[in-house]
Amino acid sequence: MTTIEYERSLPIVPTAFPISRLAGVRACGVACDIKASRALDLGLIVFDAPVAVGAVFTQNQFAAAPVLVSRQHLDQSGGRIRAIVASSGNANACTGEAGMRDAREMCSAVASKIGSRPEEVLVASTGVIGVALPMDRVRAGIAKALGALGTSDEHGVAFAKAIMTTDAFAKTAASNGSRSQTIGAAKGAGMIEPNMATMLAFALTDATLPSSALAGIVKRTADASFNRVHVDSHASTNDSYFLVATGEREIEAQVAEDDVREVAARLAWLIARDGEGATKVTTIRVEGAADDVSAREIARELARSALIRTALYGCDPNWGRFVSQVGNTRALQNPVALECWIAGTRVFAEGAPLAFDRAAVSRAMKREDVELVIRLGDGSASATVMTSDLGYAYVEINAEYTT
Amino acid sequence: MTTIEYERSLPIVPTAFPISRLAGVRACGVACDIKASRALDLGLIVFDAPVAVGAVFTQNQFAAAPVLVSRQHLDQSGGRIRAIVASSGNANACTGEAGMRDAREMCSAVASKIGSRPEEVLVASTGVIGVALPMDRVRAGIAKALGALGTSDEHGVAFAKAIMTTDAFAKTAASNGSRSQTIGAAKGAGMIEPNMATMLAFALTDATLPSSALAGIVKRTADASFNRVHVDSHASTNDSYFLVATGEREIEAQVAEDDVREVAARLAWLIARDGEGATKVTTIRVEGAADDVSAREIARELARSALIRTALYGCDPNWGRFVSQVGNTRALQNPVALECWIAGTRVFAEGAPLAFDRAAVSRAMKREDVELVIRLGDGSASATVMTSDLGYAYVEINAEYTT
Repeated sequence: MTTIEYERSLPIVPTAFPISRLAGVRACGVACDIKASRALDLGLIVFDAPVAVGAVFTQNQFAAAPVLVSRQHLDQSGGRIRAIVASSGNANACTGEAGMRDAREMCSAVASKIGSRPEEVLVASTGVIGVALPMDRVRAGIAKALGALGTSDEHGVAFAKAIMTTDAFAKTAASNGSRSQTIGAAKGAGMIEPNMATMLAFALTDATLPSSALAGIVKRTADASFNRVHVDSHASTNDSYFLVATGEREIEAQVAEDDVREVAARLAWLIARDGEGATKVTTIRVEGAADDVSAREIARELARSALIRTALYGCDPNWGRFVSQVGNTRALQNPVALECWIAGTRVFAEGAPLAFDRAAVSRAMKREDVELVIRLGDGSASATVMTSDLGYAYVEINAEYTT
Repeated sequence: MTTIEYERSLPIVPTAFPISRLAGVRACGVACDIKASRALDLGLIVFDAPVAVGAVFTQNQFAAAPVLVSRQHLDQSGGRIRAIVASSGNANACTGEAGMRDAREMCSAVASKIGSRPEEVLVASTGVIGVALPMDRVRAGIAKALGALGTSDEHGVAFAKAIMTTDAFAKTAASNGSRSQTIGAAKGAGMIEPNMATMLAFALTDATLPSSALAGIVKRTADASFNRVHVDSHASTNDSYFLVATGEREIEAQVAEDDVREVAARLAWLIARDGEGATKVTTIRVEGAADDVSAREIARELARSALIRTALYGCDPNWGRFVSQVGNTRALQNPVALECWIAGTRVFAEGAPLAFDRAAVSRAMKREDVELVIRLGDGSASATVMTSDLGYAYVEINAEYTT
């Protein structure tokens, strides 16, 4: 028997989903025993009047029932909705026709009580795959949630907590409010990969924007945030990112988009920071690549390597692994021009390691934000991704529990 | 502080590199303090007369000095050599021109003592990247090795041990000898990926084959063995697989190739079994894919997923992760036709999970050989790879030591 002791580093992240900053928004999170833990597992957001919405969903070919139903409802409603219902603990994925019926029923149960059409309600679920939703409990939970709605920020926080699964902390963000009120809540810790993965995100802005504009903003801000996060390079069946504009404030679309991007970027950072036992967020920047595809491929290969992620966990300035991993890709054209920078220190150039203070760089790798830069001499394209490190807690979470 | 206790499962693998079965072969392994541990770290094989050789090397763009020198020597010697010298503890990779000089000197030091030309000696190194070889010790080690050569099987085993780095056990194999005497030794535990990675393999056969034939055999048998092993999907700077034919026995080339393939397959299995803390070898077979490229892509995505490798470690029949990972690839055409089999039990078909005895399948996943089969309805192509599971020991090995 081998015994290992390790520090579980949990960041102190304030949780605030201040729905009170937006008019006509009510929310809540309740427990209805989808989760055995009795934690909050059903969240609801209701808008007093129809609001414009845009959304992007997983590209996994086994897209879950709630994803398929929300896609349909977006089409049928013309992108104007009255509510979003979200459940955690069970993904309602790989559940066939029965799963589709259950997801539709979740929407119609909300719709009938708030006086909307079912297609004006979107749905999201996250949790274990392949198990039928316990619909008796979900029905009771929706009834309970409809009675628990409120406009306070505590109601917002309860929503943010009700969408958590293996998350170590609730993930929320807000713009500073000088231009718009934009707030966001997300869940996601594992199975994270560009094109999104077991992540749900909900962003609300008070800007006035048609759903056609939101469709573009949600896609572009996803590309700049969630689609740059790797945890274990697995895009899940249930990923969904919803962006709602409540239409209180007239501002330029670009200004609103900038605020949404800021909120989405913070949520993405929090997802990487959680990262199922991660101790930091590592930003990998590839510069000087031949083209965008090459830059992204190199960044992605670094971000998903177990060998590199364990070196990051160990605060080991193991440039050999980083350089060798880049050398593994066909995307690299000119190996001798490669430079490797770890936490601000250049450690490799012109085909050979440089002298550097290993202890100092290792200490710098202990910080909450670590940057790894690969500078190439192939062209002028660049790419940036975030990844989590891989330590004992990752194994514990993923080997010992079915997620 | 979190405390984890885990069983380090180390398989009992007999070590035998019976060089006595082949005429004119002397070998040894000695310690010359390249490794701080004082373990054996310099191996030498000398052939009394020139022998035919074929080899394949890493495709990493940062190929190490010994790889570059061995490639040159193969060309210059026309594929007929007198010796192979191998060192462990230092890869002589990313070491620039000085590294090239060191690798050449290792060959010439051997050549001058055995009366051959330098290009009749091949060289391989494995270990830490980016550190200059301690040539004083290497020189002394080569002198010691030249005096320690012998023809006994114990001399063979010493060679097999002298090439180890993070290996938990020495890796050797032999054909049963009824058709040829084919023996092999290899090292490799981490950074393993198709196209080879931090692995060295040496196979010797008593067949009579020209180096032109060996060039084909070494490539085909690598494709059927080492190129199917994933550990952490990192092809290293130093991978080399040498195949020597001593020319004692006249047999058909195909018969010799079959024996070499058997030996290489066993060595590849041992590498996957070691796999830096692996508890088993998981064979992933993808059947019914649209074409070979699709089959390989799906198999590779499964094999390299940290999420799947931790589920294998936890003996968790988590078909949801397996199916979702396949759904992540563009190579899947017809999701609804996908079947997932774990250790002989069909657990998923027609888009939904099947009822199965989780405890029984979990028990079956505790065996030393586990098979995961993905059966598609896209065509008739198939692919098979091996992967190691990812547990606490993997993190310990890779986070806490520079390799």
